[in-house]
Amino acid sequence: MSTGVFVGVDIGGSKVLAAEVAESGAVLRTARRTTPGRRVEARLVEEALTEAVHEVADGRSLAGVGLAAAGFVDAATERVVFAPHLPWRGDPVRSRLEQLWGVPVALDNDANCAARAELRYGAARGVADAVLVTMGTGIGGALVLDGRVHRGRNGLAGEFGHMQVVPDGRECECGGRGCWEQYSSGNALVRRARSRLGVEPTMLEEMCEGVPERLVGPMVTEAAEAGDLVARQAFASVGDWLGVGLANLVAAFDPDLVVVGGGVSAAGDRLLDPARAALDRSLVAAPHRRIPPLLRARFGPEAGVVGAADLARAAAA
Amino acid sequence: MSTGVFVGVDIGGSKVLAAEVAESGAVLRTARRTTPGRRVEARLVEEALTEAVHEVADGRSLAGVGLAAAGFVDAATERVVFAPHLPWRGDPVRSRLEQLWGVPVALDNDANCAARAELRYGAARGVADAVLVTMGTGIGGALVLDGRVHRGRNGLAGEFGHMQVVPDGRECECGGRGCWEQYSSGNALVRRARSRLGVEPTMLEEMCEGVPERLVGPMVTEAAEAGDLVARQAFASVGDWLGVGLANLVAAFDPDLVVVGGGVSAAGDRLLDPARAALDRSLVAAPHRRIPPLLRARFGPEAGVVGAADLARAAAA
Repeated sequence: MSTGVFVGVDIGGSKVLAAEVAESGAVLRTARRTTPGRRVEARLVEEALTEAVHEVADGRSLAGVGLAAAGFVDAATERVVFAPHLPWRGDPVRSRLEQLWGVPVALDNDANCAARAELRYGAARGVADAVLVTMGTGIGGALVLDGRVHRGRNGLAGEFGHMQVVPDGRECECGGRGCWEQYSSGNALVRRARSRLGVEPTMLEEMCEGVPERLVGPMVTEAAEAGDLVARQAFASVGDWLGVGLANLVAAFDPDLVVVGGGVSAAGDRLLDPARAALDRSLVAAPHRRIPPLLRARFGPEAGVVGAADLARAAAA
Repeated sequence: MSTGVFVGVDIGGSKVLAAEVAESGAVLRTARRTTPGRRVEARLVEEALTEAVHEVADGRSLAGVGLAAAGFVDAATERVVFAPHLPWRGDPVRSRLEQLWGVPVALDNDANCAARAELRYGAARGVADAVLVTMGTGIGGALVLDGRVHRGRNGLAGEFGHMQVVPDGRECECGGRGCWEQYSSGNALVRRARSRLGVEPTMLEEMCEGVPERLVGPMVTEAAEAGDLVARQAFASVGDWLGVGLANLVAAFDPDLVVVGGGVSAAGDRLLDPARAALDRSLVAAPHRRIPPLLRARFGPEAGVVGAADLARAAAA
């Protein structure tokens, strides 16, 4: 039994969050760094990681580090194949950092780590088959099958956000058109709310000081709470599309449970109720099946570090 | 080791096919019956099954019977929950026929049985994770995970044909709109070809004697072979939609392999080449992954009986 500290690190496009996580799943201590961006040497990102991990360890010995990366991680969980906001391009991140730090390092993408957190400590505990979606800027996803995160041939399973739901639909950052996350995500929520500014009366006008570019997701959540109709309709739209896309995933995988996390899920049932209605309406054979419960994730911004630390623990066991 | 005969039975909407299947997968002897329809007593269907099974056995003892049913089979593989063209509505078909025949009986839906045939003897042999689609009148499907057919919470995993690909699209028999099988299936192929009759010159005109309702799938396949442009464009359209829908499944599941079977797949690369092109074009992160091969199924109309017999063998083992 190891006595050192287990650290989970969430490496996002704009910031690094490192955390000491107890075996109970509790976050005991954190450290933050800014991500240097994607146009820098990989070394600079790795230095930021090293600083954050050492700050959390605070002189104690490390038992293992888990990394949750916002990017594609290969099937062997050795390399970050591509990351839109990070400099890694096929870099053997796991072994490089293991060598640098002299402790066991484990790696997976952020959505899979968030799924591990829910599976081990959260909404998906004890569940065999689950679909997990993370609604942030876009849609991240993970597939749990037989109680384990299913990674797929390339390690790319769970890329739900880029399933096409509208032929010749909105352009997506991935190069495709009509991707699900263009209709159901934080970006979609904000786009929808912005499109009503100056068209319908809304308190969002004042919140963003009349500058549409200043409107951000949490403002829409707050305005919806306060009863603003434009904000509520934005959630109704994004929630409806959430349910339509989930109906496709449930038709394919017939899971026990669907879990929704990420920043947009902070709105709770304001997002999930229209999603449940659309799921019930869109799902094939609805009268002949038990429709899976649609639950909010337990973990918010700490899902990645909690799952990454659990990954490190599992790798060390 | 049992010495009796293993029989697989495929119970479709219009006919019953029973077959003695060797352990090698070879079909040794068959018998056919007409399915009495869905507005009759369940007893009449069960009598047709009994006759077909006895004809195949021809006085020899039975080691086991596997049933492939065109309908929803529950998670426990005991009941046919619902079948659009058969009278069963939650009937405990497996145990009832086991009692009636005095031999072990196993049950699953036809698409899952077809997947078993490909997994054991066909295109998916030795593969861990695969997506299998059966393009007949509609789209049937099955999901292979870790070398086994994944059935899901309700036994309804693999209902790919009813994933929505067009919002407010064509009406589907399932009650939904814009389902994948409305754009990529035998019905979609024939609908597309019929829509060009009287609009463009085509040999299909003569084949169906000018009566659109007489046009059937095999005519379109034959005309496409002979170079008819309308028929070829119908395959190009259905093939393109096949690839678009498969891209969604590959994004979600990241399988090793995709297998396409069913009547429409008799057209081979005329169907699969446009599907491959659409898959390459539509799949997220295509430059960062190995795109799974898209193969034609080994088994045609006998897929169901071969898989059902294998199911019976596995249940008896």
